[in-house]
Amino acid sequence: MQVVVLGAGFGGLTFCQHFRHPDARLTVVDRTNHHLFQPLLYQVAACGLSATEIAQPVRSILSKRRDITVLFNRVVGIDLQHKQVRLAQGELSYDYLVLALGGQTSYFGHPEWEQFAPGLKTLADALRIRSQILLAFEQAENATDPQERDRLMTIVVVGGGPTGVELAGAFAELARTVLNRDFRRIDPSKARIILIEGSPLVLSHLPAELSASAQRQLTALGVQIHNNIHVQAIRAHEVELADGRVIRAGTIIWAAGVAASPLAGELGVELDRGGRIKVAPDLSLPGHPEVFAIGDMVSLLQPNGQPVPGVSPAAMQMGRHVAVIIKAELNSPRGPTARPPFQYWDKGTMATIGRSAAVAWIGRFRFSGLLAWLTWLFVHLIFLVGFRNRLAVLFQWAYSYFAYKRSARIITYLPGAAADAGSLSARTDDA
Amino acid sequence: MQVVVLGAGFGGLTFCQHFRHPDARLTVVDRTNHHLFQPLLYQVAACGLSATEIAQPVRSILSKRRDITVLFNRVVGIDLQHKQVRLAQGELSYDYLVLALGGQTSYFGHPEWEQFAPGLKTLADALRIRSQILLAFEQAENATDPQERDRLMTIVVVGGGPTGVELAGAFAELARTVLNRDFRRIDPSKARIILIEGSPLVLSHLPAELSASAQRQLTALGVQIHNNIHVQAIRAHEVELADGRVIRAGTIIWAAGVAASPLAGELGVELDRGGRIKVAPDLSLPGHPEVFAIGDMVSLLQPNGQPVPGVSPAAMQMGRHVAVIIKAELNSPRGPTARPPFQYWDKGTMATIGRSAAVAWIGRFRFSGLLAWLTWLFVHLIFLVGFRNRLAVLFQWAYSYFAYKRSARIITYLPGAAADAGSLSARTDDA
Repeated sequence: MQVVVLGAGFGGLTFCQHFRHPDARLTVVDRTNHHLFQPLLYQVAACGLSATEIAQPVRSILSKRRDITVLFNRVVGIDLQHKQVRLAQGELSYDYLVLALGGQTSYFGHPEWEQFAPGLKTLADALRIRSQILLAFEQAENATDPQERDRLMTIVVVGGGPTGVELAGAFAELARTVLNRDFRRIDPSKARIILIEGSPLVLSHLPAELSASAQRQLTALGVQIHNNIHVQAIRAHEVELADGRVIRAGTIIWAAGVAASPLAGELGVELDRGGRIKVAPDLSLPGHPEVFAIGDMVSLLQPNGQPVPGVSPAAMQMGRHVAVIIKAELNSPRGPTARPPFQYWDKGTMATIGRSAAVAWIGRFRFSGLLAWLTWLFVHLIFLVGFRNRLAVLFQWAYSYFAYKRSARIITYLPGAAADAGSLSARTDDA
Repeated sequence: MQVVVLGAGFGGLTFCQHFRHPDARLTVVDRTNHHLFQPLLYQVAACGLSATEIAQPVRSILSKRRDITVLFNRVVGIDLQHKQVRLAQGELSYDYLVLALGGQTSYFGHPEWEQFAPGLKTLADALRIRSQILLAFEQAENATDPQERDRLMTIVVVGGGPTGVELAGAFAELARTVLNRDFRRIDPSKARIILIEGSPLVLSHLPAELSASAQRQLTALGVQIHNNIHVQAIRAHEVELADGRVIRAGTIIWAAGVAASPLAGELGVELDRGGRIKVAPDLSLPGHPEVFAIGDMVSLLQPNGQPVPGVSPAAMQMGRHVAVIIKAELNSPRGPTARPPFQYWDKGTMATIGRSAAVAWIGRFRFSGLLAWLTWLFVHLIFLVGFRNRLAVLFQWAYSYFAYKRSARIITYLPGAAADAGSLSARTDDA
């Protein structure tokens, strides 16, 4: 009995943790060699954590499970009819298939914006953003033209959802409390951090009082928020807004859209507008009870009419649900029984803004500021995969908090954007 | 009074630490944004440490020195006559100039080997080697052809000096004690680590008894050493030896040669065979008393006829020597006085081989094994720049030592070598 799991994110790994059967062999395929603790990815981009602190090798996490084979490989196609997965190198037959490939940054039909405004989904994205921001300040220190300096010291974040808010807050703190002492010709605390959001308030998925609080906390950190406006175009070093205004910037980050992995579109099943698979209530593909989809690839309505949100707790709950179903069927000698529908348990929503600044919405409780921030900190540390990382991250945070320093301020590379760097190179080995 | 320091390695930073004068302003230029603790670079390549643990931003180290401006910039030329340094962006005039640009990997007239066999001088080099080795094991797990598997699981290190010995030992340990439990289709403990050295023994700069001990310790770790043989050619995935033998490999590392920064060659002064500047006894350039060179750029004989070795203690001692000279001249109202010659104080030589394995030669004492390793550990921790890094590195080492795990096993990118990776991509964002 072959069970193939595509993707080693929160959904795929949770499935593995809950699924074990004497008759089954598992194969986990991921396009990277590591599981990523995505909720803290923005900290890597903002120089607070190093890449290895929020990532662990998939095969190291699953090392003790002798029934699991991990392949660092790329999925190029899925043949639902013949129950086969085609990989860049080789192929796999399956009896059960779990699709947990997650999402990717979406530019709403403008893929050409990607080169000017990176998104934040992978470690490489985070390292690219980090290098780009640090490089912009370094170039400003070298620049002589005041206008060019102002441009280099402007950071634009497009999208006021959780990622955009976290990034804008973290960049503001980086400039005002960390970099501010280290330059001689420029004053990093004068850097402009601009957040562009189409709704009247940031974090529009939260109750209005929390959105308003987040907006106030961000403003207090020095972030300039443009509400009620969309981006018209993004070009090299500039963002054009719908009202014609043009903002020149050293760094532009795209935090406005996420879509499901493009593989979802090749299955021949119904998708929602974000390219997510409209699964059956048990999370299987309609017409393919042996294939399940979980996590950010999935479009599913809750009984209250709201969609299950694309957050890691949902992905983990789905992984567990599918594990229970498959285990029950393997243990049922008379063939498949009725499958229970997936039920999402909302544990609450949080967003962090900066040092002692956050908002949280947990059940009946809505709170913001230091208490929300401490809650956020506690919850994220608890869930960080792996003991070592937990301690290391705690150590980094305590250090940043008390010393107003950031440890991961190393420019190592800037893939694909070398031309932007002008005469300076961001690669340590180029000069 | 303008003092310009080119390079923020051990030499340049030590100069800054010892030079401070009310009449002087310093400008430090480096082509990277970080100071690198180079003695531990091999640990980054071998997945033991993460990049940020051995690197710190130069401007953060020098943050409190308001008399110092740090520029992340590239030196493109030096005009000794007009006392000017040309940078990629702008230029600097100097009254005193300190050249501390260090060295780079040399391929002895075969620059085309670089693409197939990276050297280890920069953080980017180390991350490239790390990604390449991890990727080779991942590809071996995906491969079906046994010969291809054997090739992928072969690592060749060219050069049995300190760097080559450290790398070969660390790779052997990585394969045999860390990776060995994590794969299902291949057995990483069967990986071949091959070290190629032209001399009869590795570490030929040490007394024969220590070289022999290092050779024994390496062999005990499972490293295959080819002595008395040179490399004839390096091509994609293969090394040809002088006797015609060809070794096919998944990863080839070049640890056989170092030369001074090529800027040394453009000064019009006498160089040695490694391109190093033949400085006057006070470390100044002959004919240019206002220009000094220190560290790995320098060729200087000791009174015993031996050259001052290209090691960090020598660079630091030179930095301090030049600081003392310039300070004395600024404090002497009647112009330059007689300058003392530089004297190298040899604190000893050590090389680490692996877990509890090392050799050390300190004054009259020669020892190897656990004691040498503990000494090596102690000395390197003491000298690691910055309190935070020291604690973090200690933590990593304790973790690796007791848990037989390595924390930094994340493949993030493989600059310039994507074609080698075949159908698999080493960039996290490519697939």
